[in-house]
Amino acid sequence: MKLQNDLILRAARGEKTERTPVWMMRQAGRILPEYREVRKSIGGFKELVETPAAAAEVTVQPVDILGVDAAIIFSDILVIPEAMGLSYQMVEATGPWFEKTISSESDIQKLKIAEAGDLDYVMQAIQLTKKALNGRVPLIGFAGAPWTIFSYMIQGKGSKTFSEAKKFLYTEPVLSHKLLHKIAESTINYLKGQIKAGVDIVQIFDSWAGVLSPEQYKEFALHYISMICDAITEVPVIVFAKGAHFARKEMSKLNCDVIGLDWNMDIKESRQMIGNNKTLQGNIDPCLLYADEGTIQLETEEMLKAFGPLRHIANLGHGLYPDTDPEKVKFFVNTIKNFKHLD
Amino acid sequence: MKLQNDLILRAARGEKTERTPVWMMRQAGRILPEYREVRKSIGGFKELVETPAAAAEVTVQPVDILGVDAAIIFSDILVIPEAMGLSYQMVEATGPWFEKTISSESDIQKLKIAEAGDLDYVMQAIQLTKKALNGRVPLIGFAGAPWTIFSYMIQGKGSKTFSEAKKFLYTEPVLSHKLLHKIAESTINYLKGQIKAGVDIVQIFDSWAGVLSPEQYKEFALHYISMICDAITEVPVIVFAKGAHFARKEMSKLNCDVIGLDWNMDIKESRQMIGNNKTLQGNIDPCLLYADEGTIQLETEEMLKAFGPLRHIANLGHGLYPDTDPEKVKFFVNTIKNFKHLD
Repeated sequence: MKLQNDLILRAARGEKTERTPVWMMRQAGRILPEYREVRKSIGGFKELVETPAAAAEVTVQPVDILGVDAAIIFSDILVIPEAMGLSYQMVEATGPWFEKTISSESDIQKLKIAEAGDLDYVMQAIQLTKKALNGRVPLIGFAGAPWTIFSYMIQGKGSKTFSEAKKFLYTEPVLSHKLLHKIAESTINYLKGQIKAGVDIVQIFDSWAGVLSPEQYKEFALHYISMICDAITEVPVIVFAKGAHFARKEMSKLNCDVIGLDWNMDIKESRQMIGNNKTLQGNIDPCLLYADEGTIQLETEEMLKAFGPLRHIANLGHGLYPDTDPEKVKFFVNTIKNFKHLD
Repeated sequence: MKLQNDLILRAARGEKTERTPVWMMRQAGRILPEYREVRKSIGGFKELVETPAAAAEVTVQPVDILGVDAAIIFSDILVIPEAMGLSYQMVEATGPWFEKTISSESDIQKLKIAEAGDLDYVMQAIQLTKKALNGRVPLIGFAGAPWTIFSYMIQGKGSKTFSEAKKFLYTEPVLSHKLLHKIAESTINYLKGQIKAGVDIVQIFDSWAGVLSPEQYKEFALHYISMICDAITEVPVIVFAKGAHFARKEMSKLNCDVIGLDWNMDIKESRQMIGNNKTLQGNIDPCLLYADEGTIQLETEEMLKAFGPLRHIANLGHGLYPDTDPEKVKFFVNTIKNFKHLD
């Protein structure tokens, strides 16, 4: 089916667009009362992820309510460790928690390489979403980057430093590569499954990029992102490595179309480091949406001017924070949609 | 009293030294069994901070046990909000917690500007430490940077995003400046008191620098660090702003002697951004100390070569993590002390 709004896909490929397209990380989620209602009726976060009809419903909500230029499938990066053999729980107010973690070679051997079929509920949710979207906007698929998935599999939960996961890199580099390779292969299968099910573009989230040194990031993180980018040839690929300011030059060599910037990264400096062959995505501080409309408009327009009219997909520099007022989010989206770049 | 080892002071001033000096953030603390014994006998972390003889004892321990080139007074950055009128508790395994937080103009008006006399227990600990050190190595004093102190005063506890504190910056910029100004004035009084009590050099810790956008960092953080640097003329000043990679060029203009780098910051790139008029401090990943001795030696020597023989104080890029083996820490210190730069 031909898309009625393909702005994001055209911007990703570097084509000229009538205006800058916009979507937001975590746009489907806690900020919307409509989302909280569905979630409540289903039980909890994980049940929602695993129930295709409900996941599809909340995926479409921000397209209807906020007016964004893309939907992103409602899911979680931790479905991959689960499909590989490590199940997790989502603990209210604390975050994810793994009962078993990885600490030895035999632990790694026991893990299976996930296949798309292991995550059939995601594939079903994608198919239902595509049907519900009916060509209005593209659907974004996603997966966690291998290093981020690895950190959860070793550490077993969120952490400020991920020092357990980093300790494993320093003490067991060979095993670390084995595990990262298995995760990367699983991720490729998973993303290819998502593409087959209908997503129009995919994003790789490296949420914990910022805890590694530049050398470790190159060896243990970027290498596997690169492997995934090379494997995904069917649709455009977005890579968002939060905190990896030190890797921007290296990332310009990735076989991907779009690089996400967090709000710490200077726009002009990033463009200079990354060059003109990538589309950049981002990068408003999610806390800006706490400000009044005048401030939101001013800073959003400054961002749009700094990125310029070409090769930019507007977004936040991180996911929406849960206590953000949906009216402010709509105002942010409309500011972008109404903005005219000077010729 | 003349110092027997003034390597750190000379390196801070840009003078030639026989070898690269070394100390570590959090060197006085949980990694040493000798520290845990003193702490246990006193009761808890806060009691230890507030008991001058015990604080002096644990301050000197790493000089004796680890062989570092400086002591840093054992204390906490949160003594300043407490002296201003907001007391805190240190909750085991969770971190600091403030019963009262700041949310209005009248809250800010009620805060007093702290004087050195309000923190007499710190001054006494410094005097006792100087006596115990007996001129062996310099003593480092310290304070939190105003933005970091501000974030705790608003948020009331640690946070991954400090979104409450950032919300206050976006919604109440005028009040934010009022509060930051009061904190900066208190910090100047406090650091001047520490210098009078005997510290030879001071460090300003901006632990939460990394959550702000470049523009906000300049307006709400760097401005007040600059105010403090301008006021402290008696001893060298070190500024460590963790995560403020985006502010390195700006920081070169500060009236300080040393700029600390975290382990994410590339050494050559940082030197280029900051120029040759500042000493740089850092920047080994604290997780390297989990590795074997061969790896520690290799990476430490690579760091020393990258910084070069001049204008460098060796350190970690963050505080020591609590489960680090003291033997590995000694090995790291000795690797630095034994390293000979090529002429």
